[in-house]
Amino acid sequence: MSATLIVLAAGQGTRMNSDLPKVLHQVAGAPLFAHALASGAALSPARTVLVAGHGIDRVREAAAELDPEITVVEQAEQLGTAHAVAQARPALEGATGDAVVLYGDTPFISGETLRRMAAARAEGHAVVVLGFEPVDPARYGRLVMEGDRLARIVEYKDASEAERAIGLCNSGVVMADAEALFDLIDAVGNDNASGEYYLTDIVAIANDKGLSCTAVTCPEAETMGVNTRGDLVRAEAVFQQAARSAALEDGVTLTAPETVFFSHDTVVGRDSVVEPNVVFGPGVSVESGATIRAFSHLEGCHVGNGAVIGPYARLRPGAELSNDVRVGNFVEIKSAQISDGAKVNHLSYIGDASIGAGTNVGAGTITCNYDGVFKHRTEIGERAFIGSDTMLVAPVSIGDEAMTASGSVITCDVPEGALALGRARQVNKDGLARRMFERLKSLKAKSTKQVK
Amino acid sequence: MSATLIVLAAGQGTRMNSDLPKVLHQVAGAPLFAHALASGAALSPARTVLVAGHGIDRVREAAAELDPEITVVEQAEQLGTAHAVAQARPALEGATGDAVVLYGDTPFISGETLRRMAAARAEGHAVVVLGFEPVDPARYGRLVMEGDRLARIVEYKDASEAERAIGLCNSGVVMADAEALFDLIDAVGNDNASGEYYLTDIVAIANDKGLSCTAVTCPEAETMGVNTRGDLVRAEAVFQQAARSAALEDGVTLTAPETVFFSHDTVVGRDSVVEPNVVFGPGVSVESGATIRAFSHLEGCHVGNGAVIGPYARLRPGAELSNDVRVGNFVEIKSAQISDGAKVNHLSYIGDASIGAGTNVGAGTITCNYDGVFKHRTEIGERAFIGSDTMLVAPVSIGDEAMTASGSVITCDVPEGALALGRARQVNKDGLARRMFERLKSLKAKSTKQVK
Amino acid sequence: MSATLIVLAAGQGTRMNSDLPKVLHQVAGAPLFAHALASGAALSPARTVLVAGHGIDRVREAAAELDPEITVVEQAEQLGTAHAVAQARPALEGATGDAVVLYGDTPFISGETLRRMAAARAEGHAVVVLGFEPVDPARYGRLVMEGDRLARIVEYKDASEAERAIGLCNSGVVMADAEALFDLIDAVGNDNASGEYYLTDIVAIANDKGLSCTAVTCPEAETMGVNTRGDLVRAEAVFQQAARSAALEDGVTLTAPETVFFSHDTVVGRDSVVEPNVVFGPGVSVESGATIRAFSHLEGCHVGNGAVIGPYARLRPGAELSNDVRVGNFVEIKSAQISDGAKVNHLSYIGDASIGAGTNVGAGTITCNYDGVFKHRTEIGERAFIGSDTMLVAPVSIGDEAMTASGSVITCDVPEGALALGRARQVNKDGLARRMFERLKSLKAKSTKQVK
Repeated sequence: MSATLIVLAAGQGTRMNSDLPKVLHQVAGAPLFAHALASGAALSPARTVLVAGHGIDRVREAAAELDPEITVVEQAEQLGTAHAVAQARPALEGATGDAVVLYGDTPFISGETLRRMAAARAEGHAVVVLGFEPVDPARYGRLVMEGDRLARIVEYKDASEAERAIGLCNSGVVMADAEALFDLIDAVGNDNASGEYYLTDIVAIANDKGLSCTAVTCPEAETMGVNTRGDLVRAEAVFQQAARSAALEDGVTLTAPETVFFSHDTVVGRDSVVEPNVVFGPGVSVESGATIRAFSHLEGCHVGNGAVIGPYARLRPGAELSNDVRVGNFVEIKSAQISDGAKVNHLSYIGDASIGAGTNVGAGTITCNYDGVFKHRTEIGERAFIGSDTMLVAPVSIGDEAMTASGSVITCDVPEGALALGRARQVNKDGLARRMFERLKSLKAKSTKQVK
Repeated sequence: MSATLIVLAAGQGTRMNSDLPKVLHQVAGAPLFAHALASGAALSPARTVLVAGHGIDRVREAAAELDPEITVVEQAEQLGTAHAVAQARPALEGATGDAVVLYGDTPFISGETLRRMAAARAEGHAVVVLGFEPVDPARYGRLVMEGDRLARIVEYKDASEAERAIGLCNSGVVMADAEALFDLIDAVGNDNASGEYYLTDIVAIANDKGLSCTAVTCPEAETMGVNTRGDLVRAEAVFQQAARSAALEDGVTLTAPETVFFSHDTVVGRDSVVEPNVVFGPGVSVESGATIRAFSHLEGCHVGNGAVIGPYARLRPGAELSNDVRVGNFVEIKSAQISDGAKVNHLSYIGDASIGAGTNVGAGTITCNYDGVFKHRTEIGERAFIGSDTMLVAPVSIGDEAMTASGSVITCDVPEGALALGRARQVNKDGLARRMFERLKSLKAKSTKQVK
Repeated sequence: MSATLIVLAAGQGTRMNSDLPKVLHQVAGAPLFAHALASGAALSPARTVLVAGHGIDRVREAAAELDPEITVVEQAEQLGTAHAVAQARPALEGATGDAVVLYGDTPFISGETLRRMAAARAEGHAVVVLGFEPVDPARYGRLVMEGDRLARIVEYKDASEAERAIGLCNSGVVMADAEALFDLIDAVGNDNASGEYYLTDIVAIANDKGLSCTAVTCPEAETMGVNTRGDLVRAEAVFQQAARSAALEDGVTLTAPETVFFSHDTVVGRDSVVEPNVVFGPGVSVESGATIRAFSHLEGCHVGNGAVIGPYARLRPGAELSNDVRVGNFVEIKSAQISDGAKVNHLSYIGDASIGAGTNVGAGTITCNYDGVFKHRTEIGERAFIGSDTMLVAPVSIGDEAMTASGSVITCDVPEGALALGRARQVNKDGLARRMFERLKSLKAKSTKQVK
C-alpha cells in the first residue's frame, strides 16, 4: 500500500529575522524541509506534497531542484495546521493508504519512528499521533491515553491538574488513513481563542466517529523544531555530533572531531584519516584509506583509496580523484578526473580537465578553461610532466609522457613524448639591478626630503 | 556638564609572564585599555587620562594610535590606586563634573552601568562606587550600605562576621565630583599593612566630610579583570560568545558560531552567511546578503551586498568590494576597489588596484605593485578580461573591455577594447621529453648503483 | 643500575575498527606506543623491548623509524600479559636492575610516576605495582595492601564485599627486579576462566617466595587506556588541553587555544602569538616573539625570533626561518633556509632552496626543484629582488642584490647585481579583444538558438 507525505512548510519564521523562508535555512548542507522529506522517505511515499506559503517561489524552486516529483501547493493564508493540510487535498485526489503529516522545520524525525507509526496503523488504528516524553513537558499539549487508545489531545491551557501531570506530549506529527484524513479535517472548526483550524482536533473527531486512535512515542530529540537562528545552530550541532560519532564508529580516524563538518550525505570510508578543520559540503564520498589533511574543503567530489588531499586543498563539484592521487596545498580542482597516482601538489587550478595516471602537474599550473564566454576542456595523458607555471589554454591536449617546460603557455596540442616550450630566453644585464635600485633609492630620498 | 575619564594602566601584570605591558594584551582585536576607554565613551568624556607605568613608551604609542587626544601620565612608582589617580591631577587642572576611574585590565564595564553611576551622581551623591554581587564573594572588599548611602568599604581581612555576610562587593570603579576627587585623594594615607594609598579610602573620608556616597550595582560579568593569560583567554571567550549571539539575533546565518572569530568592531549585515572557520580582524563591515565562505580571513575591509568571498579568501586592509563581487580561493586583496560584479576567483594577488564593474580576473593574476622601493597602482576598466597568469607591472592601466592573453607580462597600458599579448610562441620538440626522461632515469640508475 | 623497558603492544584493538594495529594510532602526532616509550625514557633504559603481535611488520617499521635500538619481539598467540612479557626474555638475557612493564595503548604514565616506582624498588621491594584510585572503581582489580606491603591483587569478580570496598585499583603497570621477573613469570599458570597467563599473578607468587611487593599510586588520568576511536579522541583532547594550558603558562599568547593543535614535541617561545586555527605537526620549534597567524600549518620546521608567519602559511619539514622572516599567505616552504629579514609574502613555493638575508621574493615565485627524477637546489643571495611569477629552474643561483624581472623563467645563474629577464615583449592589438568577444557572444547566441 502506497504512502502519502504531506510536509507543512508555509510559516514565515518571523523569529529567524530573515528574508529567507524558514524551511530554506540549512542544516548539514540541506534545507530544513529536505530533512523532513528524508524522514518521510522511509515510507517510500508515492506522492509528496509540500504546503508552502511565505516565499513560495523560492520554496518551489528549492523543491524542484531536490526532486521534480514533489507537488508544491500554496496555503495563501495561515489559518492553522488543519487548514494547511486541507490545501493538499486537490493534489492527493484518490490517495489511499497511510498519509503522514510532517513539518518542514522539524528535521530529525527518524524513519524508524515513522515505520513504527505505520505499524500501528496496520494494526487498525485510523489515526496515529507521534508523542514524546520531554524532560520538561512545560506547555506542550498532552496526549490523554486510555489503554492503547488515544482518547484526546488537550492543550495545556485547557488541561486539568490531572491532565497536566501527564508526561506524554504532542509532537504534532500525525499519520492517518489517507481517505479518512480529509473528511476528518473537514469537520475541524476554528471556534477557539486564536480562530485557527488545528490538525490535532481530528483525534477527538475520529473518536466521535468510532474510529480508533493511538499514539507512538519517540525520543524527545527527534521532535526538535527550528524557530530561531539559535535553534538552527543547535540543530546543526546535534547533526554534527551524531555524524562525528558515526564516523568514529565506522572506523574513520578523526583527530579533532569537533573541527570537522559533515554534510547530510557525506560518506567517508574505514581507516580514512580526517585531520582537524575539514569542511565537507554536500555530495562527497571518500573511499577507505584516504587522508584528508587539515584545512581542506570538499564539495560534490569523490576521493579514491589511498589518496592524500591537502592541507588547504579545495575539491569542487565534479572533482573525481582515483586511487593514490595526491592533491596538495592551495590547489583547486573542479569538474576534473584525476587518474591513479597523478599528483597536483602546489598552487594550481585544474578545471574542466582530465589527467592521466602517473602524471605530475607542477606548481602554479592553470587550466585556462574560460574564454570569457565558453568553457573548454584540457586533456592530459599518462605519465606526463607539466612544468611549473604552465598555462594550458583550453581546448588543448597533452599526450602521454609529454612534457611542458616551466613557464610555458600551451595553446596547441602536444604530441605524446614531445617537449613543449613557450617561453622567452633568459638575458642577464650585468649590474643593472644594482643601478636601478640605487636610482630608486635616491628618488625616494629626494621625495622624502621634499615632503619635509 | 563634561566628564573626565581616568584609566589606571600602570601595572606590570607579572602573572601574564610577558614582556608586553598587561593593558596592551588584546581581546577581540583591541588592547585591553581600549576596552576601558570604549566603556568610558558612554560618558562622552571631555578629557581622558591614561595612567601608565610599566612599559609606558609602548602604552603611549598604542594610546596615540587609538586617539591622539588621550593624555598619558606616568606613575613612576606603584604606590596604590589613590596614588595612581593622583598622577592625573596636573593633566586635569580645572576639570569639573563627573570623574570616573576605570581600570585598563577590566574590559567589560558597560556604558549603561556608567550612565547609571552618572545618574546617581546627578542625584547629589559626591562619590558613587560600583558594586557587584558575586556568586562567591570570597575575599573581595564589602560595601557597607546604610539605606541608599554607602557608609564605608571594608577590606575582607578587616571585616567582622556580619560584614563578611554582606553580598555586595567592591569593583574598584569609582565616580566622583572632579573637583572634590583630588582633595579626597590628598587625604588618603598609607598607614596599612602594604603601605599603599587606596582609592577606596575616599569613601570614608567623604563621609567624614559630610559628603554623600552611594553605590550602583552591575552584573558580576562586567567586573571581570585580566591578570593571567588564562583570564585573557576567558575574556576573549566571553566577548566571542556575546558577539556570536548578537550576530544570530541580528539575522546573520552562522553554521558553526563557535568557529567564527569577531573583532570588537565587526559589522555583519542581516541574512549574510558566515560559514565555519572565519576570522574577522578589526575594521570589517559586511553588508546584508553577502556570503563569507569557510576559511576566510578579513581585516580592515568592506564587503558589499550579495558578494561571495572564499573559501580561503584573504581580504586585507583597504579591500573594498562592491555588490555581487566574487573573490575566490587563495586570493589576497589589499588596498583595492573591486566594482560591482567583478570576479577574482583563483590564486591571485590584487594590491593597490582598482577593478571595474563586470571585469573577470583570471587565475594566477598578480599586480606587481612593488619595485623594491615604491608601490604603484594598477587600474583596470570595466568588463575587461584578464587572462590567467597575467603579470600587471604597475603603474599600468587596462582599458574597458580590454583583454590580456594568459601568461602575459603587461608593462605598458592597454587601450580599451585591445588585446595585449606578452608571451613567447609555443614550440613542440617531438620525442624530446621521452629522451630526456630516459636519460635522467639511466643517470639515476647509475648513481644508485655507485652508492651501492 | 640500568633499567629495562618492556612495552606490550601485541593487541589487535578490535574495537578500533581499523586495519592499523592499535598502537600505531596517533595521539599528538606520535603513535600510541611512542608515548609509552617516552614515559619509560624517564628511567633511561639500557634496553627496550616492544612485544608486538597483530600487524607486527608495521609496528617493527614504526619502531625502527622512531629508534633503531628498540628490539621488537613477536607474541604469536595472545595468551595473556605474563605470556607477552615472557616473549621478551630471550632479548633480555643478562638484564639486571629494574624492569618495567608498560602498555602500548596507555600513553600518559608520567616519568615522575615511574621514578617513584623505581624509588620504591630501591627501598628493597622486589615487585612494585602501579595503583590508582578511580572516581568509579567499577570492575577494576583491587590492590590489597597490608601496611606498605602489597599482599595480592584480586580480580573484581573474585573479590569479597570487603575487597570490593577497596578504592585502590590495578593499573597493570609493574616494575620488578629484572632477574627475578622472568622466574616469577615462569611460575604463572593459566588455570582460570579465560585460560590466560596474567602478569598480576606474580604478586602472589613473589609473596609466596618471601619477596616483598608494594604499590605506588598515580592520578587516574595517567592510566587512561585507548581501546576505541572514542578513547583516542579523548586522549587527544586530554593531551591538547594540557599542551594549551602549558603554553599559556609559558607566556605564549593564544587567542583561541581550543583551535590550536600541538604535537608531542612542539616548542613555542615566550611572547609568541598564535592566532586561531593553527596546526603544529611534529618537530616544530618557534622562538620567542614570533607570530603565527591564523590558518597556518607547520611541520618539522624552525621559526626565528620576530618572524611573522601566515595567515595560510605552510611550513614543511626542513623549513628554517631566521629572525624577522616574513612568510605570507598561500606560501609553502620546504627544505629551505630563509635568512634574517627575508620575505616570501604571497602565493609561492620555495623548496630545496636557500634565501639570503633581506631578500624579497615576489608573489607567485616557484622554485622548479623537480625534473621528474631528481630534485635540485636554488640558491638566492642577500638583498636580492625576485620579481613576481619568477620560475627558478633549479639547479640555479641568484647573486646578492640581483633582480629578476617579473614573469621570467630563470634557467641560468644570475650574477650579483645583475638584472635577469626571460619574458616576451608586450604587443597590443587594438580593438581585437572587443571583436573576439563579439564573435564569441554571437556564437553563443547561435548555439543557444540551435539547442532551442
